[in-house]
Amino acid sequence: MTSVKAYRRKLDLKSGRVDLSHGAGGRAMSQLIAEIFHAALDNEWLRQGNDQSIFDAPKGRMAMTTDAFVVSPLFFPGGDIGSLAVHGAINDVAMSGARPLYLSASFIIEEGFALADLARIAESMGAASRAAGVPVITGDTKVVERGKADGVFISTAAVGVAPEGLELSGDRARPGDLVLLSGSIGDHGVAIMSKRENLEFECEILSDSAPLHGLVAEMVAAAASSLRLMRDPTRGGLAATLNEIAQQSGVGFRIDETAIPVKPEVAAACELLGLDPLNVANEGKLVAVVAPEAAQALLDAMRAHPLGRDAAIIGATVADDRRFVQMRSSFGGSRIVDWLAGEQLPRIC
Amino acid sequence: MTSVKAYRRKLDLKSGRVDLSHGAGGRAMSQLIAEIFHAALDNEWLRQGNDQSIFDAPKGRMAMTTDAFVVSPLFFPGGDIGSLAVHGAINDVAMSGARPLYLSASFIIEEGFALADLARIAESMGAASRAAGVPVITGDTKVVERGKADGVFISTAAVGVAPEGLELSGDRARPGDLVLLSGSIGDHGVAIMSKRENLEFECEILSDSAPLHGLVAEMVAAAASSLRLMRDPTRGGLAATLNEIAQQSGVGFRIDETAIPVKPEVAAACELLGLDPLNVANEGKLVAVVAPEAAQALLDAMRAHPLGRDAAIIGATVADDRRFVQMRSSFGGSRIVDWLAGEQLPRIC
Repeated sequence: MTSVKAYRRKLDLKSGRVDLSHGAGGRAMSQLIAEIFHAALDNEWLRQGNDQSIFDAPKGRMAMTTDAFVVSPLFFPGGDIGSLAVHGAINDVAMSGARPLYLSASFIIEEGFALADLARIAESMGAASRAAGVPVITGDTKVVERGKADGVFISTAAVGVAPEGLELSGDRARPGDLVLLSGSIGDHGVAIMSKRENLEFECEILSDSAPLHGLVAEMVAAAASSLRLMRDPTRGGLAATLNEIAQQSGVGFRIDETAIPVKPEVAAACELLGLDPLNVANEGKLVAVVAPEAAQALLDAMRAHPLGRDAAIIGATVADDRRFVQMRSSFGGSRIVDWLAGEQLPRIC
Repeated sequence: MTSVKAYRRKLDLKSGRVDLSHGAGGRAMSQLIAEIFHAALDNEWLRQGNDQSIFDAPKGRMAMTTDAFVVSPLFFPGGDIGSLAVHGAINDVAMSGARPLYLSASFIIEEGFALADLARIAESMGAASRAAGVPVITGDTKVVERGKADGVFISTAAVGVAPEGLELSGDRARPGDLVLLSGSIGDHGVAIMSKRENLEFECEILSDSAPLHGLVAEMVAAAASSLRLMRDPTRGGLAATLNEIAQQSGVGFRIDETAIPVKPEVAAACELLGLDPLNVANEGKLVAVVAPEAAQALLDAMRAHPLGRDAAIIGATVADDRRFVQMRSSFGGSRIVDWLAGEQLPRIC
């Protein structure tokens, strides 16, 4: 091995940059993968160095999901594209009630991207993945010419095991169901926007990016059979999520503005930025539509978990052929909460 | 529903373009997904419209893989980024001996990209996925500003079921093993380069992009216990693949140039373009390292499959602490086949 090592210098993680050779399938790519990705994400699967990884599948039903991440800026208060990509895929699996087991990650990197930033992102992915107990077992790296991407994009996919008999789906909301929200809305979107616009607030607003599978497990344990569906209100915020469910289930929603937790600093920032918290992305919150008789038990289970401390019942499903989401405002009036036709916050995740 | 449909005009698939709203999580995104992706990839899982899909897992060991695709141009002789993304993920799962079951796909789209081209890519994915019998069951779409990507990038992930007892891995090659190649090399890379450079040859050179799981199944059926490992020589070509295996297994290779199939038109194009076919990417070929006693049976099984008609035994694994890949050339001499340090063909896949 000395003959090989003799002409391989370590990557310059201080001032080095990604070049096209790092995506070419040859020696430079192999080094990038070893010294950045395997170093940060190390586990028994990646160590085998194959183009795929093998795992023991549990018997029964499995969930699969994927997400692309193009967030700008790459680093933001409370997280970065690496931790976000881990949490996002985990959460999409968890919303089916499934327990996430394994992740894959593919990277599209712009030529000239700092190796130090890439290492920081990989380390953040590794930390998020270890904290969640969901390893990244396979990956891929591509490099495109300067100006053909924007720093780095990450796509993650996740697989998980779904509990027998639990069938959550966006079309299962029924009139009379109650709507639970796991905590305050708008934190992620406002954290991104304040960083992007260089705004400083008295108290720093952090993204809520977090893995929700632990919270979901508590809810499943508390009242699995009363759960109709869960969804994480990411892009488009709570408004888009409720409208989606209304469309899928063929129902309406009545929600109560005063019941929806919004942190005062987030509310203030939204006012300053001209945003409605209902449309702002979250990355560590979930909405659950549940049978009314189990709502209190589920709320208690959520509040007992660190990521559900501020959980609340925010409204109910109603019969409505128009599939409207209506909100009683804090002033007593009622308005229709539409999903936005256009783009409010590009590249929020 | 008429109240909703009344203000939703269909996407203009003739001259419309992607804008940022198509990635915003709202109504426009929902429409893009419905009218382009679900239309092209339709199946029972996508129809449920959830952020993840549930499938019945077979008992036993499973394989998972992911790949990002950034090929330029997006459309090339013999395929496009859509079919390539399906075949690439299928092949990475198949190389473990596993049977691919399901795919995920995430899209990063540049603002301004023609909806007609997006639809064409989605349809090509759908056709490739149906032909292979491996459905795309979950997906994601992001849109970035003009100039922050290059048309469209696709990441696919795949899961499959691995036959009990079959353990293929890059570290299992042993001195005395034989090396099988399933067909001619260089076709994909040359097809891309000729399109990129606007070259015309007498006979058009097509990418070999194809799903290899059918061929692999025949090989597993013929002599599973004699297979050490399989790998598809994509980026970096046959040279990179053999060097990777040499590193992983701690062995050397002796290959025979005259035994390696190269189409005459590909050889001619390589000469014109200054490329060595050994370094050029393939997207429908596999290399197998096998126990010598089963080599002929495996070769027969490969040749009986349409994608293995030109299969050949191209060399053998040898004991070599330096882990060199050596090739006896058609002139009788011998040379070391190194993997390239730099970039020969950027964005080949």
